[in-house]
Amino acid sequence: MNSILVIGTVAFDSIKTRLAEANDVLGGSATFFAMAARLFSPVRLVAIVGKDFPHNYLKMFEDHGIDLKGLVRSEGLTFRWKGEYEENMNVRHTLETHLNVLEDFAADLPDSYRNTPYVFLANINPDLQLKVLDQLEKPKLICCDTMNLWIIHQRPDLEKVLQRVDMFIVSEEEAEMLTKESNIVKAAREILKMGPFSLIIKRGGYGAILFTQQKEVFAIPAYPLENVVDPTGAGDSFAGGFLGYLASRDSFDLETVQRAMIYGNIIASFAVEGFSIEKLSTITRDILRNRLSDFLIMTHLAPASVHVE
Amino acid sequence: MNSILVIGTVAFDSIKTRLAEANDVLGGSATFFAMAARLFSPVRLVAIVGKDFPHNYLKMFEDHGIDLKGLVRSEGLTFRWKGEYEENMNVRHTLETHLNVLEDFAADLPDSYRNTPYVFLANINPDLQLKVLDQLEKPKLICCDTMNLWIIHQRPDLEKVLQRVDMFIVSEEEAEMLTKESNIVKAAREILKMGPFSLIIKRGGYGAILFTQQKEVFAIPAYPLENVVDPTGAGDSFAGGFLGYLASRDSFDLETVQRAMIYGNIIASFAVEGFSIEKLSTITRDILRNRLSDFLIMTHLAPASVHVE
Repeated sequence: MNSILVIGTVAFDSIKTRLAEANDVLGGSATFFAMAARLFSPVRLVAIVGKDFPHNYLKMFEDHGIDLKGLVRSEGLTFRWKGEYEENMNVRHTLETHLNVLEDFAADLPDSYRNTPYVFLANINPDLQLKVLDQLEKPKLICCDTMNLWIIHQRPDLEKVLQRVDMFIVSEEEAEMLTKESNIVKAAREILKMGPFSLIIKRGGYGAILFTQQKEVFAIPAYPLENVVDPTGAGDSFAGGFLGYLASRDSFDLETVQRAMIYGNIIASFAVEGFSIEKLSTITRDILRNRLSDFLIMTHLAPASVHVE
Repeated sequence: MNSILVIGTVAFDSIKTRLAEANDVLGGSATFFAMAARLFSPVRLVAIVGKDFPHNYLKMFEDHGIDLKGLVRSEGLTFRWKGEYEENMNVRHTLETHLNVLEDFAADLPDSYRNTPYVFLANINPDLQLKVLDQLEKPKLICCDTMNLWIIHQRPDLEKVLQRVDMFIVSEEEAEMLTKESNIVKAAREILKMGPFSLIIKRGGYGAILFTQQKEVFAIPAYPLENVVDPTGAGDSFAGGFLGYLASRDSFDLETVQRAMIYGNIIASFAVEGFSIEKLSTITRDILRNRLSDFLIMTHLAPASVHVE
């Protein structure tokens, strides 16, 4: 079984949508990623929390088979994020960010993590992403996420990271921010010049689209959801399903990448149906398989009719 | 060969985008629909133009096989529309509307049109859509479009139309306007209660999604376009490709409807690559087939891999 190392945040989130709110619930890029990827492959979590981080959350991670040797418990408080969504849930605003223990995070890997074959650099300071890359021994596949903060304030570090990754996952807004280009095809072409990676652009409630260096394109709509409670973590959950599936197949040819996108898409659809990891923590392979089957029916022509007239 | 009757507008459009503009070019819902549908099936155009409407446009329609027996040439000026697009081309603003001859349009069908089997009620006053419905003899399939103006100012008439159609095509914004519901699945469920039809919601640069009374759902992403010149007429072109294909197959079972959506999608992708019918008028079946083939590669798993693991 191929393990996946994820470096990112473990956080307390406070979230307000037009319909509900939740305060100080478990969140963070590494949390969502890990809870999604664990459905497919063993996950090693590299992150930092404070002394205020409840023991029962640690136990919850462990009960889901997530390896916590790389999780540092430090003096001080856990990273906190507060955000609000507009009526159109594709639009969100950050209200508060308290880095807390994240300011002193060294991102030192346990020795046993150095040879992890699959790596996800979740949304966190690109300094730390680089530091993790420097400690790895011949990973097979490195996948990376980022956010507006690093695009604006730490672009040179981010660009260094991008030169060393195989797969880059961004949102449509981030793609536009990186390139000042609102056309997704033109933006993708610009971003592909920043490194050797394949690019996945996430489109919130509209799906995702892949662009490769070989000019392949693959687009999927989102799973149509009636009950969107909280989009927080959807992107990390997508990445978790995506990379979790690739690691489980130990392959990243185009066809496997396409299927991995569909798995990521489906996992993300569960993530947004609850606050925090409410829904993610209850998914089983059977539940996943059922929604995947629905998705294929909703998006694919019957196999017999996939031909050009 | 099954004919399609379209009632809608033939207009002069003036359009401004962030990159270019065009003044008094051929437009109107029936124009775009007819120029798209004619690729698949014979089209009968029911519309009104003024004495200022150039003869060479009439000839152009006829050269593309479009039957003009239902096109009235009246005293006065042709309908004119002026609009502007934001940087995000999914957002547009109407600047001017001059109904002109449209105010006196009676929408009387030539006798030879009354038994047309396939009918598209393009965006026009729902009064006129109803009037056409009353003149038809046992059509096989009636498909209908609308716009914000009629949703706001002529809702009762629109609702009468909707009780008599088999297929209703709206944009995502119109769906929200009709239901005050921003979630697309909830909005769709509300709209489906308004009549016996299947519903297609167009999502601009993000594709389209079908909802049927039998709770079937089918979603497709848009064809990823690098060169979007002018989105005007994309929806009508979608409808033209869609209904044109259904008429050519003389079938509207789910699988045929799914394929028709893909054809509509592809035709719309051409429509937006130029102003007016610039691109639409140059499409051939071969050009269409090539882009369709690209689209299937970009959106569908290889047939062998369409299975659930």
